[in-house]
Amino acid sequence: MKQGNIFEQGGVGFSEVWGDKLPPSILGKRPEAAGHQFYATGTSMVLHPRNPYVPTVHLNYRYFEAGPVWWFGGGIDLTPYYTNEADVIHFHRTLKATCDRHNPQYYPNFKRWCDEYFYLPHRNEPRGVGGIFFDYQNGQRGDLYRGHNQDGPAALYSQQAGNAPKRTWEEIFSFAIDCGDAFLPAYIPIVEKRATTEYGDRERDFQLYRRGRYVEFNLVYDRGTLFGLQTNGRTESILMSLPPMVRWEYSYEPEAGSPEAKLYDVFLKPQDWAQM
Amino acid sequence: MKQGNIFEQGGVGFSEVWGDKLPPSILGKRPEAAGHQFYATGTSMVLHPRNPYVPTVHLNYRYFEAGPVWWFGGGIDLTPYYTNEADVIHFHRTLKATCDRHNPQYYPNFKRWCDEYFYLPHRNEPRGVGGIFFDYQNGQRGDLYRGHNQDGPAALYSQQAGNAPKRTWEEIFSFAIDCGDAFLPAYIPIVEKRATTEYGDRERDFQLYRRGRYVEFNLVYDRGTLFGLQTNGRTESILMSLPPMVRWEYSYEPEAGSPEAKLYDVFLKPQDWAQM
Repeated sequence: MKQGNIFEQGGVGFSEVWGDKLPPSILGKRPEAAGHQFYATGTSMVLHPRNPYVPTVHLNYRYFEAGPVWWFGGGIDLTPYYTNEADVIHFHRTLKATCDRHNPQYYPNFKRWCDEYFYLPHRNEPRGVGGIFFDYQNGQRGDLYRGHNQDGPAALYSQQAGNAPKRTWEEIFSFAIDCGDAFLPAYIPIVEKRATTEYGDRERDFQLYRRGRYVEFNLVYDRGTLFGLQTNGRTESILMSLPPMVRWEYSYEPEAGSPEAKLYDVFLKPQDWAQM
Repeated sequence: MKQGNIFEQGGVGFSEVWGDKLPPSILGKRPEAAGHQFYATGTSMVLHPRNPYVPTVHLNYRYFEAGPVWWFGGGIDLTPYYTNEADVIHFHRTLKATCDRHNPQYYPNFKRWCDEYFYLPHRNEPRGVGGIFFDYQNGQRGDLYRGHNQDGPAALYSQQAGNAPKRTWEEIFSFAIDCGDAFLPAYIPIVEKRATTEYGDRERDFQLYRRGRYVEFNLVYDRGTLFGLQTNGRTESILMSLPPMVRWEYSYEPEAGSPEAKLYDVFLKPQDWAQM
């Protein structure tokens, strides 16, 4: 979608691929997949709203299998420009409720995994207010923690891995379906509330500036984007996630106490939004 | 510079660093540098003009030394939006004249090196009309060819390496100085001729769209940018090269026979501009 009233640009991608030859990156991690055909499918979506009071949203859910090896992955995360606590709390609580219906360990682990993944080291900033992210979910003990950095609090999580319940393919598939279904209740109420908020050049300029971070993350760090570009994927589909209009400004700093500074000071610090 | 009349954004960077601990990337290639202090300096410039008939220009010249090891590197290249043969020929002929005053092998080798370096595989496109680029110039036979891919015509170049004259530090330093001095005569006449050409939304939209390629190159491929971001360089200085305003559009294709198509069909094909 281009130049919509609410969404300046948006896209939904669906991919389904199969073959005989597994990528070395997968064979190295899961040698028991060798010699089997593989199948991979995923859907992804990025919506760039026009109004700076409506956050950008990104969603991706995917599945991989090769003989005895299979896993689910994906997540959803929110990137606001001008926002407020209520919207962020609503988004996270909706995701937590979905996670909690399946496993009380899902939300705290996948929220943290999301904060770790959508992070720009060169800016020392998260991409936004996060959401949930997970990968390699195959129901084995320990899969909840695979994304966590191995130092610091991760060690604590790992100690709990022995207590995590094993789960079946059907249980994780049902969780992935529920994650997809959580998109509308998590995001649409925010859009409906904020899409009519008035704004001017100042807010638009800040939105375009912050969209630059989205570009930096996707082109420098996002594994899916880089893998796609390096393996002759369809460039227009891979770069569908980039915003329609973006701005860079040398040494921009928000004025202390301004609404722009609030994004940095409050919302670009990982917080336990669902508990607020 | 921000929001100038001619240049929408421009920056000049100067760096000078030294230390005891050489990066592994250098030690792997030049083990004889081990145990020596290193010194590295460079200057770089990117100018993003406002008028779509004026091309973006990028320049970088640099020097490295550690004990017995030293080399010069750098180059200059042009990225047009709407251009014409005369401007591109002028740019390349000016660079060729500078190169030829020092060594007749410089221009053909460094022009080719530039075409190979400023290339976007995922778009199957060069970044612009090129210019010259070189690295590891230490006066030894073969250094003229170090950047070339090893298959195809590069083999021919390599055979000629035995005939290349050895050069002294002073000779290469004097070449680097002349390269810097070539910037004004190579670029300014184009700016003076084209900065008053009238344009409208169509040309502006295409300029912003094409600037997206500049972002893609710098964030996905440029070794200097990625090295800087990964080694805790000063982010604002490293990303100074990004354009002030950029646009992405899903599946854009220029209309056949249009001025936009001419960029793709004529100017984004490496050509022997200096001989035209």
